[in-house]
Amino acid sequence: MIQEFFKLEITTNGLRLYEFTNEIINWIKLNKFKNGLLNISIQHTSASLIVQENADPDVQVDLINYFDKLVPMNSDLYIHTAEGKDDMPAHIKSAITNNQISLSIKENKLLLGTWQGIYLFEHRINQQNRIIVLHYLGN
Amino acid sequence: MIQEFFKLEITTNGLRLYEFTNEIINWIKLNKFKNGLLNISIQHTSASLIVQENADPDVQVDLINYFDKLVPMNSDLYIHTAEGKDDMPAHIKSAITNNQISLSIKENKLLLGTWQGIYLFEHRINQQNRIIVLHYLGN
Amino acid sequence: MIQEFFKLEITTNGLRLYEFTNEIINWIKLNKFKNGLLNISIQHTSASLIVQENADPDVQVDLINYFDKLVPMNSDLYIHTAEGKDDMPAHIKSAITNNQISLSIKENKLLLGTWQGIYLFEHRINQQNRIIVLHYLGN
Repeated sequence: MIQEFFKLEITTNGLRLYEFTNEIINWIKLNKFKNGLLNISIQHTSASLIVQENADPDVQVDLINYFDKLVPMNSDLYIHTAEGKDDMPAHIKSAITNNQISLSIKENKLLLGTWQGIYLFEHRINQQNRIIVLHYLGN
Repeated sequence: MIQEFFKLEITTNGLRLYEFTNEIINWIKLNKFKNGLLNISIQHTSASLIVQENADPDVQVDLINYFDKLVPMNSDLYIHTAEGKDDMPAHIKSAITNNQISLSIKENKLLLGTWQGIYLFEHRINQQNRIIVLHYLGN
Repeated sequence: MIQEFFKLEITTNGLRLYEFTNEIINWIKLNKFKNGLLNISIQHTSASLIVQENADPDVQVDLINYFDKLVPMNSDLYIHTAEGKDDMPAHIKSAITNNQISLSIKENKLLLGTWQGIYLFEHRINQQNRIIVLHYLGN
């Protein structure tokens, strides 16, 4: 059994989806991983990880707008407001989506659908340095 | 360490939960998997995977109705509308739920609670052929 | 490859987040797990597992209040009402959040961010005995 770890750092600038599918694919190629599981976890609770459509960029705009309406940046709604109007909504959006994904690798290939991409979903307004842990377990 | 993969295909016909717990249990039995992890991932972004109550079918009706109200099929709300009024809501429902689950197997038995079933949650109206990847890693 | 399983039991008393990060860390220490994956799954569909901020307890209060408004305990909204006004909302909250998380362990250390804690999110009003399965797979 082989295990490898990698800390992927992504600097974000505002509420947006940041794709990192290629970074994942390159890491798999570099290490010649054959069959195994790739566990991806974000080390924060105000940003999340999602697998979404990578074809029409409007899907991402609609997603961001939808989550913004679902969890309004209105400080009257929350007790935890000291870190800014976007902080508590960010924690809630993180709870609604995911902070961890496990993906399967078969014969050196990441098993994703044709239209699937892997994204960091940033919920904070200001610039952030985000750490995502990649962990491979396989042979 | 043993690894096995299987492509499970499910044809769906509209917004509904499609149970595939038995397909999973049969695959475990067939392969005599003893102790390990089963990673289940759906290769689409307009349908999702959820573990839900398998006792009262009304729970599923309520779930579908709730998500329908939470993410309305109203094209005025979205930019991405070219693929039909149900497409963008389907992507959002997929982001709110899950596209991947990892389940544990101990002594040939899938560790699920008494009332838990595994479901494909279809968010598109028209017939779809859905691919779910099963990946076992264990001994 | 080493595998270990543990059934963690948590008695809950109402809608709240119950932290069990220390129970996880202690189990890792006790077993001297080095590098591997820890799969955590809750065996119920009316409570969930989330990774959330462990610094300001107000975050948890806001989370509970938000989910309560998002999924109202109003029996007029649901068909499945026989198990109490909180039961169907509990299933929906479970579908919106997660019932399973996989965490990575590297050099005997659980890879969590500085402000991340692991919580059982209880969605039922009355006292419940919850079972969470811990499953380690690594070396």
